[in-house]
Amino acid sequence: MNSNMEKPYVVGIDIGGTNTVFGIVDARGSILSSGSVKTQAYSSIGDYVDEVCKNLLPLIIAQGGVDKIKGIGIGAPNGNYYSGTIEFAPNLPWKGIIPLAALFEEKLGIPTALTNDANAAAVGEMTYGAARGMKDFIMITLGTGVGSGIVINGQVVYGHDGFAGELGHVIMRRGDTGRLCGCGRKGCLEAYCSATGVARTARELLAARTDASLLRNIPSENISSKDVYDAAVQGDKLAQEIFNSTGTLLGEALADFIAFSSPEAIILFGGLAKSGDYIMKPIQKAIDDNILTIFKGKAKLLVSELKDSDAAVLGASALAWELK
Amino acid sequence: MNSNMEKPYVVGIDIGGTNTVFGIVDARGSILSSGSVKTQAYSSIGDYVDEVCKNLLPLIIAQGGVDKIKGIGIGAPNGNYYSGTIEFAPNLPWKGIIPLAALFEEKLGIPTALTNDANAAAVGEMTYGAARGMKDFIMITLGTGVGSGIVINGQVVYGHDGFAGELGHVIMRRGDTGRLCGCGRKGCLEAYCSATGVARTARELLAARTDASLLRNIPSENISSKDVYDAAVQGDKLAQEIFNSTGTLLGEALADFIAFSSPEAIILFGGLAKSGDYIMKPIQKAIDDNILTIFKGKAKLLVSELKDSDAAVLGASALAWELK
Repeated sequence: MNSNMEKPYVVGIDIGGTNTVFGIVDARGSILSSGSVKTQAYSSIGDYVDEVCKNLLPLIIAQGGVDKIKGIGIGAPNGNYYSGTIEFAPNLPWKGIIPLAALFEEKLGIPTALTNDANAAAVGEMTYGAARGMKDFIMITLGTGVGSGIVINGQVVYGHDGFAGELGHVIMRRGDTGRLCGCGRKGCLEAYCSATGVARTARELLAARTDASLLRNIPSENISSKDVYDAAVQGDKLAQEIFNSTGTLLGEALADFIAFSSPEAIILFGGLAKSGDYIMKPIQKAIDDNILTIFKGKAKLLVSELKDSDAAVLGASALAWELK
Repeated sequence: MNSNMEKPYVVGIDIGGTNTVFGIVDARGSILSSGSVKTQAYSSIGDYVDEVCKNLLPLIIAQGGVDKIKGIGIGAPNGNYYSGTIEFAPNLPWKGIIPLAALFEEKLGIPTALTNDANAAAVGEMTYGAARGMKDFIMITLGTGVGSGIVINGQVVYGHDGFAGELGHVIMRRGDTGRLCGCGRKGCLEAYCSATGVARTARELLAARTDASLLRNIPSENISSKDVYDAAVQGDKLAQEIFNSTGTLLGEALADFIAFSSPEAIILFGGLAKSGDYIMKPIQKAIDDNILTIFKGKAKLLVSELKDSDAAVLGASALAWELK
C-alpha cells in the first residue's frame, strides 16, 4: 500500500523574520491552499504556534483532515534538522533553543521535520524543481543573505551537529580589508554576493568614483540590488560592472565548492539569480577560470525552477515527504 | 554466516609515483605480510600488473589462497572510485585512463575497489584509526601535496564524477600574488601547507630577511620541511615562525571546510601533522579565530592514529572491507 495514496498531502511552513507562510502541497508540487501570519507579532512561542495552527487547521480540514497529511516540513533560520529545534536565531522573536517541530507535532498530531531555509530549498528543488533526479548538487540561495543546501548521495548534508552547509560564510577576502559581515567576521561570501552586498558594492563604487550612472538618481542609502539590475538593463555601465564583479566573486567561490563535493550542478535561487546574463556570464567565466582541471566543464550552473513566491513553502513541504 | 570469517583478509595496494607498496591485512588492521615494486620501472601497465601480482600472489597463498581474501583495495593518484580507473595521473608512467581495478580483478579473480590515496586514508582512519565510530569527518593529508578525504554520513564523498574532495586546491590567496601551485593555478592551499610549501616558505623568508637562523646552514635549495621542524625544535625563531604562518593558513582553510560539512573531527595525516604544538597550536588558534559562531568549539582537531609506514597500505586495504 502506498502511503502517499493514503496521505496524499504535506504541509510546508516557511518561517521568515517578517512573515510565516504555510501551505498544503500535493505530490506534484502544487500548492492547494496557503496562508500567512506575522512572525514578529508573537513574542511567546506558544502564542505563535497557536496562531499558525488556528490558520492552518481550516486548510487541512478542507483537504480531508489531519489523516490526509503525511507530514509537516518547516524551513526556519538556524533550524537544526536532528533535534527539530531553532537555535539562537538572531532575527526571530524567540530566544535560545526552541523545540518547534515538537510543538507542532503535539498540537496537530502530525509528524514534523525542520531544517534551515536553504536546506529546505535544496530538498524542494530535488523534489519538484531543477534537481529532480540529481544525487549530488549544491543549492545557493541569494537573498538578504547567502545560504546553501548541499546534497550528496541524494541526502542533504546536515553534518555532525545539524548545521552544515553555511557556504555564505566561507571567507573570500582575508584580512582586515574584507568587508564586515552580519556574522561579525570579515570577508564572507555573503557580504559581497547577497542582495545587501550588491547594494553595498553600488554605494561604495558611487562614492569612490565620479563616472555617470543612473544609480546616482537614487539616494545612496536607498539603493537596492533591484535598482542595480534595472540600471544594468538600461545599459548603465557602472551597474553592469557591479554585476560583473559580484558574479566573478561568486564564481570563484563556486569553483572552490566544486573541489569539495564535485556536484552534478550548482543551482542558484533568489532575486540575483534571475538577473540573467548580467550575473550568470561572469559567474560561469569565473568558475571556468578558477576551477581545477579535473573538474573543468563538469558541474552545470542552473537557476532554480521554482517560482519565487512558492519556493519557500514548497521547499519546506518537500521535507515532509522524507519523513518515515 | 559472517563473510569475514570465510574471507578474513583484505589486500591493500598503495600506488605512489615512486613505489607501489602492498600488503595482506586482517580485520584488526594488522599487516600480516607486505612487499613493494618500483612504479616507474614499468612503462606498460600490463607489465606493471603482472609484476605486482607476481610479488603479491605468494603472500596471498601463504595466508591460505585467493579464497581467504575478501577484496583488494587500491589507493592511487587520480583514482576514480566509480569506474575503478586511474585518469590522467601526471606522476604515473601510464597515460590516459587506466582500468586498473578491472585489470587486477581479471588477473587474480578478487573483487577490487580503487580510489585516490587521500580517500583511502580516510577509509583507513575510519576502519582502524582515529575516526573509528565517526560518521562525519574530514581527513587532510599533508605530504608532498595536500590531499583530502571527506566522510559524510559514514560514506566517503566521491561526488558526481568520483573525484570529490580536492581540498588541497581550494584557493587561499586570490589574485596574482598567490603562489603558483603544481596544478597550474595560483594560491592553492597545497602551495603553502604541503611539505614542499613549507620548504618554499623557508626559502622565501631566508631570502627576504637577514635575521639569524639555523636554516642558513643548509643550502637553500636543499631545505626540507623536516629541516624546518628540526630547527624549530632547537628553538630557531624563524623556523617556528614558518610553522606558525603555515598552521595559521591551514587553520583558516579548515574553518571554511567546517562551514561546509560540519564534521565531528578534522584528522591530519603526514609528516607536518607530527610537528606537535609547533603546527597544531597555530592551526587550532586560526580555526578558533576564523570559525562561524555556530560551529565554535565543535570540531575536534586530531592527528592520524595510523603509523606512517603502514597507513597507505591500511587505508587502501580498508576500501576492500566495503566491497559488496
